[in-house]
Amino acid sequence: MLVSGPADLFYLSGFTGDSGVLLVESSRVALFTDGRFTVQARDEAPHAKLRIVRGPLTIGVGQYLSSSRRCVAYAPSQWSVASWKVLRRAAGARLRWRAADGLVAGLRTVKAPVEVDTIREAGGIACEVMEEVIGMVRAGVMELDLAAEIGYRIRRKGASGESFEAIVAGGPRSALPHARPTSRRIGKNELVVLDLGAILRRYCSDITRTVFVGRAPTRIRRWYQAVQEAQAAARECIRPGIAAGEVDAAARRVLDRYGLARHFVHSTGHGLGLEIHEEPRLARGQERLLEAGMVVTIEPGVYVEGTGGIRIEDDILVTANGSELLTRLGRDLLEL
Amino acid sequence: MLVSGPADLFYLSGFTGDSGVLLVESSRVALFTDGRFTVQARDEAPHAKLRIVRGPLTIGVGQYLSSSRRCVAYAPSQWSVASWKVLRRAAGARLRWRAADGLVAGLRTVKAPVEVDTIREAGGIACEVMEEVIGMVRAGVMELDLAAEIGYRIRRKGASGESFEAIVAGGPRSALPHARPTSRRIGKNELVVLDLGAILRRYCSDITRTVFVGRAPTRIRRWYQAVQEAQAAARECIRPGIAAGEVDAAARRVLDRYGLARHFVHSTGHGLGLEIHEEPRLARGQERLLEAGMVVTIEPGVYVEGTGGIRIEDDILVTANGSELLTRLGRDLLEL
Repeated sequence: MLVSGPADLFYLSGFTGDSGVLLVESSRVALFTDGRFTVQARDEAPHAKLRIVRGPLTIGVGQYLSSSRRCVAYAPSQWSVASWKVLRRAAGARLRWRAADGLVAGLRTVKAPVEVDTIREAGGIACEVMEEVIGMVRAGVMELDLAAEIGYRIRRKGASGESFEAIVAGGPRSALPHARPTSRRIGKNELVVLDLGAILRRYCSDITRTVFVGRAPTRIRRWYQAVQEAQAAARECIRPGIAAGEVDAAARRVLDRYGLARHFVHSTGHGLGLEIHEEPRLARGQERLLEAGMVVTIEPGVYVEGTGGIRIEDDILVTANGSELLTRLGRDLLEL
Repeated sequence: MLVSGPADLFYLSGFTGDSGVLLVESSRVALFTDGRFTVQARDEAPHAKLRIVRGPLTIGVGQYLSSSRRCVAYAPSQWSVASWKVLRRAAGARLRWRAADGLVAGLRTVKAPVEVDTIREAGGIACEVMEEVIGMVRAGVMELDLAAEIGYRIRRKGASGESFEAIVAGGPRSALPHARPTSRRIGKNELVVLDLGAILRRYCSDITRTVFVGRAPTRIRRWYQAVQEAQAAARECIRPGIAAGEVDAAARRVLDRYGLARHFVHSTGHGLGLEIHEEPRLARGQERLLEAGMVVTIEPGVYVEGTGGIRIEDDILVTANGSELLTRLGRDLLEL
């Protein structure tokens, strides 16, 4: 089996370089990379036979495979059409290929205790930073400056970086679920969505809180309450054996009762681990059953164009009996 | 033509969302995205006809195309084998496809004056941060803390983020060209490589400096001099009409004269713009000719396992008459 996705590669070998392909055979593992990563690969992946390729990595891997008549599994989602063509040509016609997507990603969905501990710790850092940065939200502060504080504090607490570019979105911009921070200044009487995560020893955390600068009007309070209830409903139904789509439906039902379902424009959550978005997807119609050891986000939201948005997100571990919250931070409406 | 790479998508439409596909026809442009990006897409890409897809984006695009008998160009490097299969199936058998990689990337290599101005400004931020952070390098400081300062200062100076996770690598770790910062503390009498970049209005800068903590021994001084001369030689030969591989060869010749060529384990540079690594590649044998308006990095290095590494990197604009340095910061050996 060829493995080339960075998270899969790390999961199986320990290698964290930017460029590498792993060939997993029944009794041995070979890591193909280039000269920039010789030392790093030897340190990080001592159990893999190291093969330093000169020139394009894909050609090197293909040429190595060309001497065999084996059948090689590959993940169609990890190869571009262009690279795949180069690989096949270099490997020659004798080799047989078998498409097999998600094999390693499947192994990765259920976390080992040491992985859970790391995500819990990464979640703790995210909570601390969220609390500190919420304390800095006030009218006149620039979104980008809050984002700079988030990145700085995450690293100062020992994380290697951010799981993603933090979202700090005030006022009408909070209605954009994936807003990037800008030089816009937070205004009075507006919603501010903060969405951030820490990477600790390669594992991600992900948390969102929404605050109001000033005293929130009734309409906003009602929206907030709806999101808070939707999030609780989704969290409460998490247990082994429930379908991912059922968790999504639980959040959607609450928002529907408030007449807000059409303002919830994304899915309820996603798996979390070496990647910020992993399997399972907690989305409409997903039949995959949750299993103990999975870690997922629960993050319903309501987004009203021109006014603002509200999202509340936590990280949850599926346990044998139900679930455990990995991001322990209050989620009542804060009026700053 | 279908365009799905984020940088290409922004270049042609202005859209910066995480999920989108652009269909460029002779007289109109359509942007496919999902409900999370409705408002953002309308703001950022007012000239594109907006098509919000429910469910997987690829299927939505394919189904839209299925009603036509047209010929559609696509970039094989921008589609995974898996997505491409889904797209083709959804589009049906009547549609004809033409592989055409690098069309938009090709347009992007030669920068317009406004793009150059932005990269120059991003380069200025990178230089300021480099200078400030070099001032903080001393024995006992953690690599990760310096990386946190880099990210913080880049954002506080108005950049939207870092072009890449900054490299801060001390001692033997400086011999890893792509080292990630760790909790290791900088020691006395060691090399420290700092490699960082700012993203300003979507455009990247990229600069590397190497310093010595203490008084550098003769051997290190000689390595440093070799890299400095190699970098100058490569910079000096930049002009329109020279082959990219010639620039690489110029750096390599100097290192060869010092007996260090085998320690230079990567290529001399790369194009820089909306992406941190773009065309052209300044690597062995690259025949592509440089053109006025291209922006490239020049970053030779020497890496000696167990001891340390030295890299010096600047961003250069190819001008009508030669070149212009976009990262103006001294590059003599600093002993701290």
